Amino acid sequence: MALTIGVDIGGTKIAAGVVDEDGRVVEHLLRATPARDPERVAETIAEAVRELAKEREIEAVGLGAAGFVDETRALVRFAPNLAWREEPLQKKVSALVGLPVVVENDANAMAWAEAKFGAGRGETHLVCVTVGTGIGGGIVLGGSLYRGRWGMGAELGHMQLIPEGRPCGCGNLGCWEQYASGNALVIEAKEIARADPGRAARLLEIAGGTPEQIEGKEVTDAARQGDPAALAAFSTMADWLAQGLCDLAAILDPGCFVLGGGVSTAADLWIDQVRESFAATLTGRGHRPVADIRLAELGASAGLVGAADLARIR
Amino acid sequence: MALTIGVDIGGTKIAAGVVDEDGRVVEHLLRATPARDPERVAETIAEAVRELAKEREIEAVGLGAAGFVDETRALVRFAPNLAWREEPLQKKVSALVGLPVVVENDANAMAWAEAKFGAGRGETHLVCVTVGTGIGGGIVLGGSLYRGRWGMGAELGHMQLIPEGRPCGCGNLGCWEQYASGNALVIEAKEIARADPGRAARLLEIAGGTPEQIEGKEVTDAARQGDPAALAAFSTMADWLAQGLCDLAAILDPGCFVLGGGVSTAADLWIDQVRESFAATLTGRGHRPVADIRLAELGASAGLVGAADLARIR
Repeated sequence: MALTIGVDIGGTKIAAGVVDEDGRVVEHLLRATPARDPERVAETIAEAVRELAKEREIEAVGLGAAGFVDETRALVRFAPNLAWREEPLQKKVSALVGLPVVVENDANAMAWAEAKFGAGRGETHLVCVTVGTGIGGGIVLGGSLYRGRWGMGAELGHMQLIPEGRPCGCGNLGCWEQYASGNALVIEAKEIARADPGRAARLLEIAGGTPEQIEGKEVTDAARQGDPAALAAFSTMADWLAQGLCDLAAILDPGCFVLGGGVSTAADLWIDQVRESFAATLTGRGHRPVADIRLAELGASAGLVGAADLARIR
Repeated sequence: MALTIGVDIGGTKIAAGVVDEDGRVVEHLLRATPARDPERVAETIAEAVRELAKEREIEAVGLGAAGFVDETRALVRFAPNLAWREEPLQKKVSALVGLPVVVENDANAMAWAEAKFGAGRGETHLVCVTVGTGIGGGIVLGGSLYRGRWGMGAELGHMQLIPEGRPCGCGNLGCWEQYASGNALVIEAKEIARADPGRAARLLEIAGGTPEQIEGKEVTDAARQGDPAALAAFSTMADWLAQGLCDLAAILDPGCFVLGGGVSTAADLWIDQVRESFAATLTGRGHRPVADIRLAELGASAGLVGAADLARIR
């Protein structure tokens, strides 16, 4: 069976794995990311690939990177976490490992994995939303990964949801990921705890006493214990998440949405509300089918699996 | 040369035409829409088609209708202007004319015409925004019309731009078309004229004295004469138009946008600002190409031409 290698290049670690045609990870390893030195990143990737390719015949390598990847899947135009600007990653890694290489946006790779092997199996039109610190997005249309004219499609977290809203790292105001993400959850919980500490009594207790100490884990724990402020923060996030899905449905009319990322590990606290709010707000409701909202199935390996499979079908 | 017929089914009139492979309208006729009687609409379409097909060999017929058209291009699920619910338009018209028939959303048909024969020629990824009373949208991706999983894609006017904003006919609040359309322009101008009549002196004079008399034509005329209120209304509309384009660029990364519709006949009053505001607000600006914003070229015949061509390549 033909094997490819997928590499998920994160800000702190590089995960690489050998993946088979069914999306199974046959072997897997981790390396620390030499985040400050772009040259060394390519070398570290190449070392990992060589290590994995020692005992096996490998067809191709797929690299998933957080950032703008150009439409030829060769160049990382801009990667905020890795100090890359117009980085010719495909060429560098290919020269080092002697195999065909494709570069993909990491959220696109995850979406592809979920579409082909995970929660979106069998669905031709789907939108994958990775709700973590921010929002990552990937779009599969007509059974193919959608990249856009210049490879910059599916930057879903940067739709503006609130004019003059919270400032975003992208330089704009009110982006979706400032309202529906792990960061947003913490911002919301802190705001409530500051304005109404009594309502956040349990949350503040868990966090150590002050709103500034609140992090995502504390909000989740407090919500599970019924803390009204933590529950309100989840509820607000769920409504914004649903609103963004409604906007995407108006534009793309997907058959389903797949929600993943760190925040989805606490999905029991918000998924029902997202589904209800989506169905109640969808434009044209009553005259159209309502897209399924599903949870991602492949967890942390989705990026690696997707990159490997996209290298296979390159 | 193979010929097809395109029909643009409007709320007040039905425009039908014979179209050749190059998108040229060879012959053209108009009929009044029997808007209250769904049965008679199919008959009127059939009469127009028979009339046009008398002297010519026709391959197929494409119908463009404002409304939700299902993914098989057979059924109009919901058309607010024509009192249609689950209308089997393809079957009815095909039975009456004895030719293959496809049904398309009218804005999709216009987008296709502009992509193939108009302002978007040569562009594989484009978004067409028809700015009229409301907003119509059409998306062409990878050289094909994008319809969505159930045919309901590209309802661009119903992205929410402003939470708790102006009520929309779709039942939601703050939809894009409530801020960037002919209606929005008039609402905005009226608001300014009411709040600050001195600023709208020329506009009020042209309109007949009271804010309630202001319509789109008056706002355009007053703007051309330098009326500050009318210019402000156009400026506000231009910024909202640009914001919606930015959201679409974040999601779809098209190579260009094509703007058409009634409001684009006064494009000299707003197009520069839309382009500037888009370039200044696009997420990731500086690290990606900036999509062209072009004006539609085919005018009122775009819907008919697009429907005819989509019937040809059915």
